[in-house]
Amino acid sequence: MTCRTDKNNINLLGHSEQNIRLERLKALMAEAAIERALIRDNANIYYLTGRVFRGYIYIDIALERPLYFVRQPKHLHCEADSCLFFIRKPEEIANILSENNIERQSPVALELDAINFSEALRLSSCFGQTPEKNLSPLLRQSRAIKTLREQDMLRASGVKQSFVYGRLPRYFREGMTDIEFQIEIERASRLEGCLGQFRVAGGDMELFMGNVLTGDNGDNPSPYDFAMGGEGADPSLPVGANGTVIRPSKPVMVDVNGNYNGYMTDMTRMYISGNIPPEVEHANNVSIEICNSLAAMMKPGVKASELYNKALEIATAAGLADNFMGHNSHAGFVGHGCGIEVNELPVLAPRSRDVLAEGNVIAVEPKFVIPGIGAVGIENTYIVHKQAPAEVITTAPTEITTLD
Amino acid sequence: MTCRTDKNNINLLGHSEQNIRLERLKALMAEAAIERALIRDNANIYYLTGRVFRGYIYIDIALERPLYFVRQPKHLHCEADSCLFFIRKPEEIANILSENNIERQSPVALELDAINFSEALRLSSCFGQTPEKNLSPLLRQSRAIKTLREQDMLRASGVKQSFVYGRLPRYFREGMTDIEFQIEIERASRLEGCLGQFRVAGGDMELFMGNVLTGDNGDNPSPYDFAMGGEGADPSLPVGANGTVIRPSKPVMVDVNGNYNGYMTDMTRMYISGNIPPEVEHANNVSIEICNSLAAMMKPGVKASELYNKALEIATAAGLADNFMGHNSHAGFVGHGCGIEVNELPVLAPRSRDVLAEGNVIAVEPKFVIPGIGAVGIENTYIVHKQAPAEVITTAPTEITTLD
Repeated sequence: MTCRTDKNNINLLGHSEQNIRLERLKALMAEAAIERALIRDNANIYYLTGRVFRGYIYIDIALERPLYFVRQPKHLHCEADSCLFFIRKPEEIANILSENNIERQSPVALELDAINFSEALRLSSCFGQTPEKNLSPLLRQSRAIKTLREQDMLRASGVKQSFVYGRLPRYFREGMTDIEFQIEIERASRLEGCLGQFRVAGGDMELFMGNVLTGDNGDNPSPYDFAMGGEGADPSLPVGANGTVIRPSKPVMVDVNGNYNGYMTDMTRMYISGNIPPEVEHANNVSIEICNSLAAMMKPGVKASELYNKALEIATAAGLADNFMGHNSHAGFVGHGCGIEVNELPVLAPRSRDVLAEGNVIAVEPKFVIPGIGAVGIENTYIVHKQAPAEVITTAPTEITTLD
Repeated sequence: MTCRTDKNNINLLGHSEQNIRLERLKALMAEAAIERALIRDNANIYYLTGRVFRGYIYIDIALERPLYFVRQPKHLHCEADSCLFFIRKPEEIANILSENNIERQSPVALELDAINFSEALRLSSCFGQTPEKNLSPLLRQSRAIKTLREQDMLRASGVKQSFVYGRLPRYFREGMTDIEFQIEIERASRLEGCLGQFRVAGGDMELFMGNVLTGDNGDNPSPYDFAMGGEGADPSLPVGANGTVIRPSKPVMVDVNGNYNGYMTDMTRMYISGNIPPEVEHANNVSIEICNSLAAMMKPGVKASELYNKALEIATAAGLADNFMGHNSHAGFVGHGCGIEVNELPVLAPRSRDVLAEGNVIAVEPKFVIPGIGAVGIENTYIVHKQAPAEVITTAPTEITTLD
């Protein structure tokens, strides 16, 4: 069924799986009047081949198969019906195309939201052009709808992440700081197979392995566009744990890396030592209620903005409007697509124009910051199917886990 | 001396330190006939303020102080002689400049090697322009020469990294895989204060916390432009440890994250359980010899290419030319600048046109891959001073450490 047994095959997806992704992208290209494209962002190369290599994938809607132009590594090869060329630099591509009689005059679309300005100029000049057509939105759209294989990868990631979360109480010791607790969670995740790497689209958002927030640090805003903030351990990476000692009855929010196979699930759970203050219990219950309500609504055709509004409505009815998605500073969304990268489509935000489709994988994270207490809330990742409710793939228990 | 006591000051460097960096950048701008620039890459914002924020730094060579345009977080402020504006989007910048009578017609230079094509278009259109002047090379040049403060940050990082490396034998257990050993090294590093984050310029190179290589995996090429490869644990991140069991007398190369404060030292050391094969001892000694010889040469005015040639010459004389910087696949350099990012200037490569300057911080990593045995070699980070030899700031013992 797949070519995975041959680990030097450039296409680790196998023909049929690759074709599903390629045909979807080509259909979007045709719609956008784009005849050909050159892809070189690691996340997109992984999407189209199941591996990361240094080089380019050339797609022409008139050609059945993609052409591979590889800089590194040199030991790759491809199926008999495809073509792979080893190159030293992208300037060789146009010549190779013309030698193989696959010349065209039409603009070559590039990933203009992913590659830097200088590289975009260089790549388009390889074809005697200037950058014009942007392939990034098409890839985002294509990747937002996960194939059955991708859904399986995400389910597998969710199982492992849930297993690790279930074991967290054994890593807690009284008097620990948030950073010390996070380090033990990182180790447990890694031992379970977490790859550690946290792929994020764009160069703005930076994070190391995830976010553990306790006490007042939950109210420290961060420059990054994550749902929650935190001061961080250093001004060079101002997000997340900051060395706060985990105190009894202070909630601990754990939102740690779910990348076990190249696809990321996103899950948050609450932990606490000692008594659970009623406000914390309440906020966590409201968060669970929002997740369940949104899951019950999530099906093809539903507007992402409706889901956000529903979440805000429930939070407001519960008296938590001022605490919803932050207190000193508020995140502008309650959920986001995830997969190869953690910030995919659709985005559940008030002004989002995204509409849900079958195969979307969406992390829903209704979180609250309560001054003097901390950050509270859960996050689940869901697969959108033909019928509601959406399937939850982050299955750790949603209630607050005690750490004693 | 500094403003660090006020943690909401946007400039955590203090006036005098910031001025050193700004004046160097402005001098380079003047040389390149660039009158003004807009900076927004996290690494460069950190360089110029000592913190990461979401927004822009506007520099005009005619203005003494930079202007800050901040999107997040909202609690920052600046010194009385500077100006900070909170904005929602970059389109507001031009209006604010004109309201403050700091209008100009000249092109605004942007970080065209760091920001994506779409963003470059958007930012320049905020000024009614198209992208023209590239600020990236100037920032690279400025950042290549570390200030005394930056040198101190790097020394501090080197001390912590060396301390962690000295403790590695206690984390080794017989029968461990390379990944299991790496996880313990990651934990030890994190507990000592390592921030985990590995800043790399450009979107191509990806790595999680560093590289542990043993046995034949040392000869597995990777798509990334690191000195050594490795298959990695998954095709979505094909570099480094791949689950190989660490066998007696098989060398283990440890090259793990040295980011303890926003500045990264780069250090590699060799570990082994059981007897040290003579080829491994020999290769490690040659690597040490190359490091020492290059350190003795490193001073202002020396060509980076000369250093590479010297390294290759020593390797060749030792009978290791075919193993130098790889075997199946060869890295094209023997050293590189490091600091806020791990791939800074100068680059010690055969065709490098870089010339050493006082204040350069350079990682030298003469490494060998011996078929059937593995990867062998050390890496040290050096500060270039007025006089040779360069100062080594990664001070763990260079001989092979036994793991029994």
